[in-house]
Amino acid sequence: MIALALVHYPVLDGKGETISSALTNIDVHDIARTGRTYGSEQLYIVTPIDAQRELVRRIRGHWVEGAGKDRIPARKKALERVAPVADLAEAVEAFAERAGRRPRVWATSADPRDRSTIAFDTARATLADEPTLLVFGTAHGLAAPALEATDGLLAPIEGISDEFNHLSVRSAVAIILDRLLGAR
Amino acid sequence: MIALALVHYPVLDGKGETISSALTNIDVHDIARTGRTYGSEQLYIVTPIDAQRELVRRIRGHWVEGAGKDRIPARKKALERVAPVADLAEAVEAFAERAGRRPRVWATSADPRDRSTIAFDTARATLADEPTLLVFGTAHGLAAPALEATDGLLAPIEGISDEFNHLSVRSAVAIILDRLLGAR
Repeated sequence: MIALALVHYPVLDGKGETISSALTNIDVHDIARTGRTYGSEQLYIVTPIDAQRELVRRIRGHWVEGAGKDRIPARKKALERVAPVADLAEAVEAFAERAGRRPRVWATSADPRDRSTIAFDTARATLADEPTLLVFGTAHGLAAPALEATDGLLAPIEGISDEFNHLSVRSAVAIILDRLLGAR
Repeated sequence: MIALALVHYPVLDGKGETISSALTNIDVHDIARTGRTYGSEQLYIVTPIDAQRELVRRIRGHWVEGAGKDRIPARKKALERVAPVADLAEAVEAFAERAGRRPRVWATSADPRDRSTIAFDTARATLADEPTLLVFGTAHGLAAPALEATDGLLAPIEGISDEFNHLSVRSAVAIILDRLLGAR
């Protein structure tokens, strides 16, 4: 059993400063769709800003109960698994309640900064052992306090060109879920 | 050697009618970034509409020569591989010129509609044999004439929930490039 958390604070900007990033509508849609395709239970949108959580509720409401529901019925199935939370601890707690036990929490990062990481094969082989919350950072990735609050860090995705590794978080989520859960 | 084509015509709408879809800025960015990460030579944006190809040139120009170049230097490396073309034949011709021979052209679809498909393992094992153009449809996917103009069709991506398979094209490109080219 897995769930996803998309973190807007604390994350890094391009200069390495800690910021709170703005909610991006397309992140919510793309990641909810990928999550639903790979069987994720919930997508927790993590932001400490009340107005941004309210915006998540409005986006969700439009597609689950509002006009969007009839226009694109498949989108309802993806968006109904979206939930706003104020911080990562609240996401863990909400998923624990759903799973019946505290989940393991794994962070993701394109830049592990010398931390040890979990190889994808290992992660895939043990995924079914416990409920697992996968944590993704927006902007330039999770800040150190967010990384350190987790139980482990997945290996970075490496393409074939070592001089370029700048995936969008939407693309990174898709690749990681497919590596962990895709049919082989 | 691979390149990508993102097709805006002929594609399907939600009712199965053939349409020309509108250019989406985030598609260009996300797919260019994923392409560059996995070593794709070019991203051909296929649209018969002159004004839409002009828009592609303006987006590219902003990030490659304009103000965007200094603000996010990594984006230049991704966007400089973007090229607008009027149809799929022009994309094939442009890539042939670059590769020194006609590329193999593989389509992608979430719904193969009884066509035979190429398994990802087979595709991965033979990818280095010839230059290969991977063709992706926007909206609800490539219309039959676009599928039929190619040399083969990759297997659909299947998640674990068989009742839901509605990835964005941005997510589908990321998963497919990782399956074909990602480090194992």
